Amino acid sequence: MLRAAIVGASGYTGGELARLLCTHPTVTITAATSRQYDGQPLSAVFPHLRDRVDVTCRNLETAAIIDQADLIFCAVPHKTAMDVVPSFLEAGKKVVDLSADFRIKDAAVYEQWYQPHSAAYLLEEAVYGLPEIYREQIRTARLVANPGCYPTSITLGLAPLLKAGLIDPSTIIIDSKSGTSGAGRAAQVGTLFCEVTDGFRPYKVGGTHRHIPEIEQNLSDLAGSPVTVSFTPHLLPISRGILSTIYAGLRQRTELDEIMALYEKMYDREHFVRVLEPGKLPTTQQVRGSNYCDISLNLDKRTGRLIIISALDNIVKGASGQAIQNMNLMCGLDEDAGLHQAPLFP
Amino acid sequence: MLRAAIVGASGYTGGELARLLCTHPTVTITAATSRQYDGQPLSAVFPHLRDRVDVTCRNLETAAIIDQADLIFCAVPHKTAMDVVPSFLEAGKKVVDLSADFRIKDAAVYEQWYQPHSAAYLLEEAVYGLPEIYREQIRTARLVANPGCYPTSITLGLAPLLKAGLIDPSTIIIDSKSGTSGAGRAAQVGTLFCEVTDGFRPYKVGGTHRHIPEIEQNLSDLAGSPVTVSFTPHLLPISRGILSTIYAGLRQRTELDEIMALYEKMYDREHFVRVLEPGKLPTTQQVRGSNYCDISLNLDKRTGRLIIISALDNIVKGASGQAIQNMNLMCGLDEDAGLHQAPLFP
Amino acid sequence: MLRAAIVGASGYTGGELARLLCTHPTVTITAATSRQYDGQPLSAVFPHLRDRVDVTCRNLETAAIIDQADLIFCAVPHKTAMDVVPSFLEAGKKVVDLSADFRIKDAAVYEQWYQPHSAAYLLEEAVYGLPEIYREQIRTARLVANPGCYPTSITLGLAPLLKAGLIDPSTIIIDSKSGTSGAGRAAQVGTLFCEVTDGFRPYKVGGTHRHIPEIEQNLSDLAGSPVTVSFTPHLLPISRGILSTIYAGLRQRTELDEIMALYEKMYDREHFVRVLEPGKLPTTQQVRGSNYCDISLNLDKRTGRLIIISALDNIVKGASGQAIQNMNLMCGLDEDAGLHQAPLFP
Amino acid sequence: MLRAAIVGASGYTGGELARLLCTHPTVTITAATSRQYDGQPLSAVFPHLRDRVDVTCRNLETAAIIDQADLIFCAVPHKTAMDVVPSFLEAGKKVVDLSADFRIKDAAVYEQWYQPHSAAYLLEEAVYGLPEIYREQIRTARLVANPGCYPTSITLGLAPLLKAGLIDPSTIIIDSKSGTSGAGRAAQVGTLFCEVTDGFRPYKVGGTHRHIPEIEQNLSDLAGSPVTVSFTPHLLPISRGILSTIYAGLRQRTELDEIMALYEKMYDREHFVRVLEPGKLPTTQQVRGSNYCDISLNLDKRTGRLIIISALDNIVKGASGQAIQNMNLMCGLDEDAGLHQAPLFP
Repeated sequence: MLRAAIVGASGYTGGELARLLCTHPTVTITAATSRQYDGQPLSAVFPHLRDRVDVTCRNLETAAIIDQADLIFCAVPHKTAMDVVPSFLEAGKKVVDLSADFRIKDAAVYEQWYQPHSAAYLLEEAVYGLPEIYREQIRTARLVANPGCYPTSITLGLAPLLKAGLIDPSTIIIDSKSGTSGAGRAAQVGTLFCEVTDGFRPYKVGGTHRHIPEIEQNLSDLAGSPVTVSFTPHLLPISRGILSTIYAGLRQRTELDEIMALYEKMYDREHFVRVLEPGKLPTTQQVRGSNYCDISLNLDKRTGRLIIISALDNIVKGASGQAIQNMNLMCGLDEDAGLHQAPLFP
Repeated sequence: MLRAAIVGASGYTGGELARLLCTHPTVTITAATSRQYDGQPLSAVFPHLRDRVDVTCRNLETAAIIDQADLIFCAVPHKTAMDVVPSFLEAGKKVVDLSADFRIKDAAVYEQWYQPHSAAYLLEEAVYGLPEIYREQIRTARLVANPGCYPTSITLGLAPLLKAGLIDPSTIIIDSKSGTSGAGRAAQVGTLFCEVTDGFRPYKVGGTHRHIPEIEQNLSDLAGSPVTVSFTPHLLPISRGILSTIYAGLRQRTELDEIMALYEKMYDREHFVRVLEPGKLPTTQQVRGSNYCDISLNLDKRTGRLIIISALDNIVKGASGQAIQNMNLMCGLDEDAGLHQAPLFP
Repeated sequence: MLRAAIVGASGYTGGELARLLCTHPTVTITAATSRQYDGQPLSAVFPHLRDRVDVTCRNLETAAIIDQADLIFCAVPHKTAMDVVPSFLEAGKKVVDLSADFRIKDAAVYEQWYQPHSAAYLLEEAVYGLPEIYREQIRTARLVANPGCYPTSITLGLAPLLKAGLIDPSTIIIDSKSGTSGAGRAAQVGTLFCEVTDGFRPYKVGGTHRHIPEIEQNLSDLAGSPVTVSFTPHLLPISRGILSTIYAGLRQRTELDEIMALYEKMYDREHFVRVLEPGKLPTTQQVRGSNYCDISLNLDKRTGRLIIISALDNIVKGASGQAIQNMNLMCGLDEDAGLHQAPLFP
Repeated sequence: MLRAAIVGASGYTGGELARLLCTHPTVTITAATSRQYDGQPLSAVFPHLRDRVDVTCRNLETAAIIDQADLIFCAVPHKTAMDVVPSFLEAGKKVVDLSADFRIKDAAVYEQWYQPHSAAYLLEEAVYGLPEIYREQIRTARLVANPGCYPTSITLGLAPLLKAGLIDPSTIIIDSKSGTSGAGRAAQVGTLFCEVTDGFRPYKVGGTHRHIPEIEQNLSDLAGSPVTVSFTPHLLPISRGILSTIYAGLRQRTELDEIMALYEKMYDREHFVRVLEPGKLPTTQQVRGSNYCDISLNLDKRTGRLIIISALDNIVKGASGQAIQNMNLMCGLDEDAGLHQAPLFP
């Protein structure tokens, strides 16, 4: 059995790692860290996992984590992650980091959007953990930077088009909507039930959300030239799910068939990307609780724009599920081990 | 007292007309028609209105309606409306029609998106009932075509900019999200609780929603030249509310202050449009149950695009509240009579 | 105009007082206190009230409040209320206290369920603000203890039966369900959106909720002898609303007609209690945003038990609406002034 | 591989059978019937199952179903079930019937609450499929009557107490709350999103719900004498979940420890019943999507009543999950095969 540690186990992504790992055939959770819940069973922090996980939250030192695990999931916030990841690597452990700390290749860009980086020397080595694009590098990585939830939905949605050069990158506008679990489990007035339910709102409007440099890095890499996008996130009164509506102008008249063929070619053998037939549209419910990303392509002949819609569960394919997919690749396991859950509907 | 009839009283917009009119100081509901609920008190169809409305639903002939009312709200679906409106006008009644039948000035355009028009001769006379733009014409109108919910949110959001010519109309992309009451009270699998809750989905993607010709007619009128837009509607798991996120490229570099000034000038004396100060963002909860449309302006300096966000309650300012505002204007009453309800939060 | 102050304006009941008072014909909010939001307009704390309330939150001294108001709503937590109420009364002000501090007549009982009482000398004078039962005393009161939300729904539901002596009080079991606004606007993990939505849970099970002594005091007063009840509260994934399902054994076989007659007699002239005809059942949506309490009576002939169901909006009839009803009575205004809002559905 | 057919595949319980079976190691869905969706892939009826189930809905004759399956799940409404089940049995097939048709042992009782029974001769043979109580009979059954959702939550909640004779059965009052999926996937106004969301309501009040005879049959069997209960169901604005709050008077003073011991003894080796430690309370979210039933015991010393709270997912342990558990027992498979999904939270 592979021994896995969850550093930062009491947040929603920590709990989701535990939920998914408890059905993984060859991995055991051997350590779970939490300052706040030190001494409490993880199943007290997440009562749905009662009888399913048998680990107690501890406020562990780095050395203790290293002793107890072969692979470490870092599910702590950015800045905290960069403080602990180097030690794990030095001790020869594999690390999947769910924070933003190792996603941006250019330290200057990272520091512009976040804060100073104390482990920038690892940025080159870190592999961006989007298996559908960087699978081979992930297999041999020591450190995988697990992608952000919005960037995953957007990058998978645009990859075939950008690679083929069919759209004008300067026209890309991304209107994304996320479930509230993306805001985390910390007590805040803004995410109280009464503030969110039966409502809808945008936030970080006008090019200010921190996922923008990550999105642009991914799209630029695919396009082969710098891409700048408009990105507006919104908060949905649902727990799980991101749906991104992406607008892009075609460089020239192109039939939908031709575009569909690009997507089918790229994603046909993927376990976790489902390209919907023309006329079918994704919903967040269709992917809830699963590692799927569903994508739909729509051509607006009146305006010459393509509307790409992608949906995923922000704490599965957008976080913990993708982290397990990365772990599987890094450890030579079946890529879909522990990720067989069908979506939950209704 | 002004005698008002509601034709098609059993749908959500019919119920909302009744809710609002029951606090109107100078209007009484004298007739409410419904084939399905013939003989039942309106307060049995809408139990929240118990003790507040005292009218019984009847499957009335046109003549009976004419006898009992001075002003008639038509809250029946398009196509049904065009069959009854002419008789009401011939009998000298004032009509506010909440359907799409008299909104489009060009019968050919109407027929392309809907079906043949049997009363096209009234299209020229009908006044488009957006008081913030067509107030003077509404005052003297016999027939007011009450705007669609999406078009109201979008037209109010873009009007000052288009009039001033600051944006390039060909760049307009509108990503709208609507509460489920917009789908009506008819029994359908797609709007069952379990199909909608904890989920989110787009619909009518790719330039196919019937509000598009209405939106383009309004925007073209404001811009003074034909405007074609991308418009994507989405279904929110909330009862009430539309939030439109509108992207538009500026023709030239413009400061936000300058744009704010345009909006303040146009909407400063309006009862029902609230322009938010920079940095504040609308939410559907902030307008729930009220006749307000809240608007926020955001400049993305990275891309040179303006992001306008507008929010309203789709069955108040997007339907029944606006209908009452129009009635007030047509009948020489205070424009905000019966519309003083503050939004309900939480 | 009557000048009203809201002490503790930033919570949900404070916001609701402001929402209701902004349509009150003869009352103005002249002061609103908040330590946390000192210096901010109340409409920044509650953006739905933009353009509707024109008062700034201040961290005011007691003396300043006294200067600015004729009547004071105390919307601060219990224990805090008892510290400020005496000064207001000494200065000759009328007070409606929304906390629990002056509801329990017996200081020893209060102290058993809460904590020591520093103003117990006022308990005898304080009038329990349930107008349907204590209307005459309220009219002349200086200090009204505004009832709790659960006790209001339960007391109105059982009053006619207990007065008539038809049920055996020892058999009363109350299963109540409340919307989440009842938990307040303080940031807590337990009331985060993701913890509450799409879920349901009991809390304070086994006779431990602090509303129990208040419920039992009311029911004992009506029955004329001590009553002990089973009471279980539950948390609903809705913002507003309490629905209480109350079980009681009939002392002897009684027809539903006879019981209905008791309720009609007691509530017939009440503005805010709606007794539903047999077979109709209350819902929280039917009363949302209004000051109504809807009551339904159901006889289970198989078991000889009566099932009384009552529904109200916990922050209107269960808090701020009832507070305004009390203010109206205390100040000689129309009892329903400012409380004409029809329920909001859907 | 065991070949399983789903008769009535297009409802929520049909879809849930498919979701659960698609991860079952030794069962394949070989037939799925639906009149309405004849010819459509099941994954078009339930898009969340895309890439997971590979069966097409057919309006099959009984003979065709018999040809294609070893075990048949009947997920059609009561009355329809009794028309097809006899043929399946005659052809030597095993049947798990999810309707009410074979749950009630006494045909007269069935006919009093439902309608005439055309296959009453099977009632004696049919085994009531609650494995925690009737496991051994299920192992050898040809026909299992899968329990109702409410009866499962109530019977598991009360079984140890009734067997031990600690409570007075005449005092049992059950207040249950169910998610909306229990109302099925048929288009109805009453279960539209806007009618259910942000609301709560009771239904079938006063001893009229059809699950009552089933509940009383189970409880009487456990108590060893006839039991009559008060039962009130309510509709929750959630998709999945039933929470039952059960009140029962103790025959004599008993400590909680003693009662806990009874539950632990009965359920200690059960895969799917989790007895919570004192002070912990069930929630529907904690069991969502899983086959668990969580139970909590609470003693109200003030009234001498015990409050038992049980929670389960109405379409898993309350329907399709329990059906698969029964199938596993009938076919000699591991009882928990295909039922390893951990609950989904948030």
